[in-house]
Amino acid sequence: MHILITGGAGFIGARLTRTLLARGELAGRRIERVLIADQVAPPADLAADPRVRVHTGALLAQCQALADEPLDGVFHLASAVSGECEADFELGLRSNLDTTRALLDALRRRTEAGATPVRLVFSSSVAVFGPDPAIPLPAVVGDDTLPAPQTSYGTHKLVCEHLVADYTRKGYIDGRSARLMTVTVRPGRPNGAASSFFSGIIREPLAGEIALCPVPPDTAHPVSSPATTIAGLIAVYEASREMLVGRTALNLPALNMTVGGMLDALEAVAGRAARELVRFEPDARIAGIVAGWPKAASAARAARLGLQPDRDFADIVRQYIAESTS
Amino acid sequence: MHILITGGAGFIGARLTRTLLARGELAGRRIERVLIADQVAPPADLAADPRVRVHTGALLAQCQALADEPLDGVFHLASAVSGECEADFELGLRSNLDTTRALLDALRRRTEAGATPVRLVFSSSVAVFGPDPAIPLPAVVGDDTLPAPQTSYGTHKLVCEHLVADYTRKGYIDGRSARLMTVTVRPGRPNGAASSFFSGIIREPLAGEIALCPVPPDTAHPVSSPATTIAGLIAVYEASREMLVGRTALNLPALNMTVGGMLDALEAVAGRAARELVRFEPDARIAGIVAGWPKAASAARAARLGLQPDRDFADIVRQYIAESTS
Repeated sequence: MHILITGGAGFIGARLTRTLLARGELAGRRIERVLIADQVAPPADLAADPRVRVHTGALLAQCQALADEPLDGVFHLASAVSGECEADFELGLRSNLDTTRALLDALRRRTEAGATPVRLVFSSSVAVFGPDPAIPLPAVVGDDTLPAPQTSYGTHKLVCEHLVADYTRKGYIDGRSARLMTVTVRPGRPNGAASSFFSGIIREPLAGEIALCPVPPDTAHPVSSPATTIAGLIAVYEASREMLVGRTALNLPALNMTVGGMLDALEAVAGRAARELVRFEPDARIAGIVAGWPKAASAARAARLGLQPDRDFADIVRQYIAESTS
Repeated sequence: MHILITGGAGFIGARLTRTLLARGELAGRRIERVLIADQVAPPADLAADPRVRVHTGALLAQCQALADEPLDGVFHLASAVSGECEADFELGLRSNLDTTRALLDALRRRTEAGATPVRLVFSSSVAVFGPDPAIPLPAVVGDDTLPAPQTSYGTHKLVCEHLVADYTRKGYIDGRSARLMTVTVRPGRPNGAASSFFSGIIREPLAGEIALCPVPPDTAHPVSSPATTIAGLIAVYEASREMLVGRTALNLPALNMTVGGMLDALEAVAGRAARELVRFEPDARIAGIVAGWPKAASAARAARLGLQPDRDFADIVRQYIAESTS
């Protein structure tokens, strides 16, 4: 089978690609080809795999060409991140709304020309939820909580969830939208996501560096390790229509943490000195964005697919240490 | 003040224009100019009013030119109807999604260039609600019911609600989305809307003609008279941000009826002979679309604005008779 992974050179995309290549199969079919589409080149180990083809450049211009390739499945992960979209409204519209629309229309034309509808997993986000003044956010957001996004990023993710559902209803694709929790611990440097500090407050201290935390320690948020997130994306791809029940988006499993609880786990795994490298420096812009996000999430439909959250945050810290030193 | 009414030559749009011209003011300001933008020419009485300017043609191509006019408020009513969108997917995308997006972007650029953000009422629809297999529809859909649209029309209305909310959050417009119930009794001939029969089963018998009803008499649905719908659109325009509470869409008042109840009212007002002109002829296509719509709706936020549903369906029948014979 042939798989397209948009955003395949990013952290989640590269990890998903690596996992799929190691498995060698998806939904019971041998993986012959993985197309990575990204603005930047993928890591060298992926580019070197004979099953990998790389398309580098802006996705918006490439959607039709990609859909014209032999194609069985798509993981659509490419996205501008939340902070970028708040800072540059047009970038957000173009990267997260127009690009998804162009991809869906290219896949639709493929089906209209007689091809089998492509299975597509769209990576949505827990950022679709937010506290609209008229609609208080429940303590725990579930699959069936009413989304009221408080960022352009969350708005575009929600809009695309509904487009994916409608293109699926019409039979143009076999689409499913999975809402990712905040993925931590990400390696590398801070990125433009407002949630970037959820990785930084663990990653930097483990490297002996000072980390700035822009929100208070009682800030609560649902998170997930990279491994659990990748397992969720693959399970949602492999699920039958019957197991998914509806066409609406489902939440991926969440470990519901506070910043303080994350730092307790850091201390338990790496010692007090590591924790003391975290300095609280309030940042109103970041805090404002985070205040519009859920404090905790549940994932009943994902649980029916056999998906469970990470056991505890110390596990997540250890997963990061093991991988960053291997 | 200067007001743009998209779809201003349609049934709701022309009636809204007529009502506004008769009032002479909106939100406490004198109406100097009404721009009617529609694919077809408006009724002669509107075109003859010295305060009216008419822009005829596809709205998509005109959005920037319209936003470049002096402008204080917009009623964005232009839309392809549900049946058309199911039959022609690209028409639905173009008319209901791309056009709204183009209008919002034109208004955004206006604000970015220094103009006061325009107040905009977007006419959404009760068709945003539907029974996704994973999310049963409640017996009565409220402002805070999770929408899961089962048509492209409902999908695009929902998507535009969220775009209006986000452009409002960013300060580009002062937008508010009102979900219209099915408006009955519409004059004229059946149109492409799957809900067209909700008018036909009253209008045709009153004209001494046979009407075909494509759904069984126990089909339940929330409806509203033209007058109540127009009053709702104006009240949502005039409401302060505080009265609206949130940026999410609100339901307009609904009179919750069954087809049988509507025919009882027809008989009470116009006699048994009128009712006997209605023939039940099942139509699977129409019934399938209607089955995905709510059976009843509530409108708590509209009630806080002082808006109430029609008192009973006999009132609605009498309103139609009085207007169609005047």
